[in-house]
Amino acid sequence: MSSERLIYLPLGGAGEVGMNAYVYGYGPPGKERLILVDLGLTFPDMDTTPGVGVILPDISWLAERADRLEGIFITHAHEDHVGAVAHLWRKLGVPIHARNFTARIAKLKMKEAGLPPEEVRTAEPRPDALEAGPFSVQFVPVSHSLPEASALIIDTPAGRILHTGDLKLDPTPLVGEPWKPETFAEIGREGVKVLACDSTNVFNLHPGRSESSLQPEIEALVRGASGAVAATTFASNVARLKTLAEAGRAAGRSICLLGRAMNQMVTVAVESGVLKDFPPTLPPEDAAQLSPENLMLIVTGSQGERRAASAQLAQGKYMGIRMREGDTFLLSSKTIPGNERGVLKVVNQFSEMGVDVIDDHDGQYHVSGHANRPDLEELTRLLAPAMTVPLHGEHRHLREHTRIARETGTPSIVAANGSMVDLTGDAPRIVEHVEAGRVYVDGSVIVGQFDGVVRDRIRVALNGMVFVTVILEGDEALGEPWAELVGLPEAGRSNKPLVDLIESELAAFVERAGKKVLRDDDKIEEGLRRVVRQIAMEEIGRKPELRVVISRIEPE
Amino acid sequence: MSSERLIYLPLGGAGEVGMNAYVYGYGPPGKERLILVDLGLTFPDMDTTPGVGVILPDISWLAERADRLEGIFITHAHEDHVGAVAHLWRKLGVPIHARNFTARIAKLKMKEAGLPPEEVRTAEPRPDALEAGPFSVQFVPVSHSLPEASALIIDTPAGRILHTGDLKLDPTPLVGEPWKPETFAEIGREGVKVLACDSTNVFNLHPGRSESSLQPEIEALVRGASGAVAATTFASNVARLKTLAEAGRAAGRSICLLGRAMNQMVTVAVESGVLKDFPPTLPPEDAAQLSPENLMLIVTGSQGERRAASAQLAQGKYMGIRMREGDTFLLSSKTIPGNERGVLKVVNQFSEMGVDVIDDHDGQYHVSGHANRPDLEELTRLLAPAMTVPLHGEHRHLREHTRIARETGTPSIVAANGSMVDLTGDAPRIVEHVEAGRVYVDGSVIVGQFDGVVRDRIRVALNGMVFVTVILEGDEALGEPWAELVGLPEAGRSNKPLVDLIESELAAFVERAGKKVLRDDDKIEEGLRRVVRQIAMEEIGRKPELRVVISRIEPE
Repeated sequence: MSSERLIYLPLGGAGEVGMNAYVYGYGPPGKERLILVDLGLTFPDMDTTPGVGVILPDISWLAERADRLEGIFITHAHEDHVGAVAHLWRKLGVPIHARNFTARIAKLKMKEAGLPPEEVRTAEPRPDALEAGPFSVQFVPVSHSLPEASALIIDTPAGRILHTGDLKLDPTPLVGEPWKPETFAEIGREGVKVLACDSTNVFNLHPGRSESSLQPEIEALVRGASGAVAATTFASNVARLKTLAEAGRAAGRSICLLGRAMNQMVTVAVESGVLKDFPPTLPPEDAAQLSPENLMLIVTGSQGERRAASAQLAQGKYMGIRMREGDTFLLSSKTIPGNERGVLKVVNQFSEMGVDVIDDHDGQYHVSGHANRPDLEELTRLLAPAMTVPLHGEHRHLREHTRIARETGTPSIVAANGSMVDLTGDAPRIVEHVEAGRVYVDGSVIVGQFDGVVRDRIRVALNGMVFVTVILEGDEALGEPWAELVGLPEAGRSNKPLVDLIESELAAFVERAGKKVLRDDDKIEEGLRRVVRQIAMEEIGRKPELRVVISRIEPE
Repeated sequence: MSSERLIYLPLGGAGEVGMNAYVYGYGPPGKERLILVDLGLTFPDMDTTPGVGVILPDISWLAERADRLEGIFITHAHEDHVGAVAHLWRKLGVPIHARNFTARIAKLKMKEAGLPPEEVRTAEPRPDALEAGPFSVQFVPVSHSLPEASALIIDTPAGRILHTGDLKLDPTPLVGEPWKPETFAEIGREGVKVLACDSTNVFNLHPGRSESSLQPEIEALVRGASGAVAATTFASNVARLKTLAEAGRAAGRSICLLGRAMNQMVTVAVESGVLKDFPPTLPPEDAAQLSPENLMLIVTGSQGERRAASAQLAQGKYMGIRMREGDTFLLSSKTIPGNERGVLKVVNQFSEMGVDVIDDHDGQYHVSGHANRPDLEELTRLLAPAMTVPLHGEHRHLREHTRIARETGTPSIVAANGSMVDLTGDAPRIVEHVEAGRVYVDGSVIVGQFDGVVRDRIRVALNGMVFVTVILEGDEALGEPWAELVGLPEAGRSNKPLVDLIESELAAFVERAGKKVLRDDDKIEEGLRRVVRQIAMEEIGRKPELRVVISRIEPE
């Protein structure tokens, strides 16, 4: 038996949809040479990560082994695949490889962060191959919901891995490369040891629909609209932007793009050559002068993001443009679980303005960018892998995907973030669990998931807070203790100001306390805490968070 | 023209799904005699109402006119219709009328709150009628997702109102009364001036399905399961509880109910006579002894609530019962928008345990309790109202419902919470806007939506907080200023402890400050704030919330 092995280690994206980061390694155990596929981020929410900017995978394991890392390969330009490059590149320090469109996005991120954009190298698609230690990597064009998405062929001495990235089987994607079954059949004939595969839509039992199927629907909608039309989708969905813009043009409307991400994405797509014949666009100040029936807006904020163009239009205006009664707002998008409330807020605000909101309840105006179950089955048939490793999904997705693979006789395994899998043999085998998790970009600082920073914020949000100060000189109190209340009702049961009640009870405690207690910070703190907790419970029925500051003045 | 008028004033439930509270009035303007239909609550979320217990309608307008209030009528026992009675009854002080099952639930709430349960009066259904000032009110049995739901006929000198409450058109609801078109046709023939109508499912274009259509599907699922089966639904959905329990019995399994709400609801349903032939149940301690394949659990927590039985089973065990690999968890429910994240957490935790989760992706195991658009159209045809007032819905629902009414030539209007509508003439007309909104039950206190209590908690959650204390004696500082950090990283850019950096800069500021500044609390506070903000921005890239406490010791 060879002393070398082929390993797979997801550090993000396996057990969640978001912050993808997959390590492959080949070599003697513990000395494998490594590559990283994708380096994405995910977004915070108020329930678990209030105040956090973005969330990154914890790549400590890899950073400690950066000397064994041969390169970073980015499959496509979605934030959950490329969004962390600028945040984490310094810890890894190796070249980033991506195809033209993706590379341009990655370079922009590096530049904005003051990092060397030339560390991002533009790769050509298969049959070109990049050598990276024991690995030979080819970018295989696939269709997805943005241009130049790629699967990766990762050839190793132990066999071939086909890492799908995100993909769908779309023969007519409008922008980007069509699904070519013959390419995958050929790759399959060359022999695939491991299919590392997108699991997002494994629960969807219908074959995926093509991007081009939306064109007539959207065109009919825009033609039939009487006032202005504003449509939102993900900025990166360049094909959809084109469909929307073409629908506007066909209806004789001028096109205006609203939102920074939207404009940046179209610029990069045009410059990189993936977006051709995009209709001319008007700047917002000119669009604001047009009659509504001549206007087609394409706007950011499909997930109800508070500061995006959609939310601002729903609240009044954005860059001088205002929606009015009789206008139409089209959600050409899917709401990501967890974002429903934000999206519904926008929808209801538009409703209050008299704007007709068209959502995608029947899939009429949106198709997914991921392969559904029948598509995954077709992919598997074409590639005939010796084993399947599901990735890009919550645990339930990975588990279901594993079940499908097994049904066709293909060994498979659920490997969540931190599970190191040995792929060398006939079946995947978990051999080690390494520390994996998330870190938070918090303001300008990266904090750990378990540092307690966010936990403390959540506690104050749930419980409110009382801050107590007492000043002591030796065994005597100087003045009376102070209390500051944050996020608590001003008065409770007795209708007297809560702060007064607390302060007078704190004063009484200090008054009563013997010299021995007043010399002992722990005893004082314990006593003060008890007083606050008891009054808070009696008066307002809750236990606030508590901070006690005991200031000791040196006796003169 | 008569000097009297008929008015409608929603104080909750119009412009949202939740906390229903609808006022009707009849009499000279400003002197109308009033009734209240429903008095419900709604639930908080971390985004907008962290730490809040439940949310109630702001009924100040009505409380100030309690002397004109003739009674409270509760259509059915869902929390969004009856949940606020115990919280708000004291402000109104009039009898609460409801049918037997609902009255029992309301009495329990009154009793728990130390209020007189006898103020809840049990009403008999139509043709019985209750006189309440100028109103004559009849309870009309309708089908919904719990027993004894009722529409109300409210006869007034200005004509008849049919207030639907929540309803669906189910001829075979299993528990509760079936939909009887002939009853509604008869009510229509007697003449309906106003249809005040449930709008929840106005966007659903398919006719609603009957509760009984689920029975074979659920039975097949349970029969086919190999391990234990746990199924969750709303506790109040007594028909579904019966379907689930019957499916368990048919498969030869013992039934065990988990969760306080589930047990309470079944007890009340049996006692009130609406639930007959419910299979015998086992207490959890006996259920824990059974082999999994003999067990059918019916559990609370269909919305992913953190403390409910589902969430606890997903995390390990609940009352000694543990789910295992090969068991099945059935979501016989719809996820309410905003609860997706909590539900998915439960689903993925079960997935990690190897439990098969069956959700309701195709409506196979759940049907809605509300009338869909074709049902609303049928209802309107039968009642032939002179006008329609949509209620029980977000703004988008009300607006769409108004559009449908107008299409059939029925005058209609969107009247959101606080809009007083004159129903006397041929069409509804908004005549006044009164203060309406929400209040929060926060611990044991009711706080106003705009009191700032919750706003402060959200700010700390998003920004973290710094407390600064400085002690002064005349124009001299005693010791150095203290800083306490809450929810902030320990260190930032310079890698030095943030608290030390802040304290030393605060000390430097106090040192530098002239006697004039040190005598002026405003100036000191301003200076200290500037110092903290600047360092926080430099070091951690954010602006924390700030509280400054200046303690002045009297010079001796």
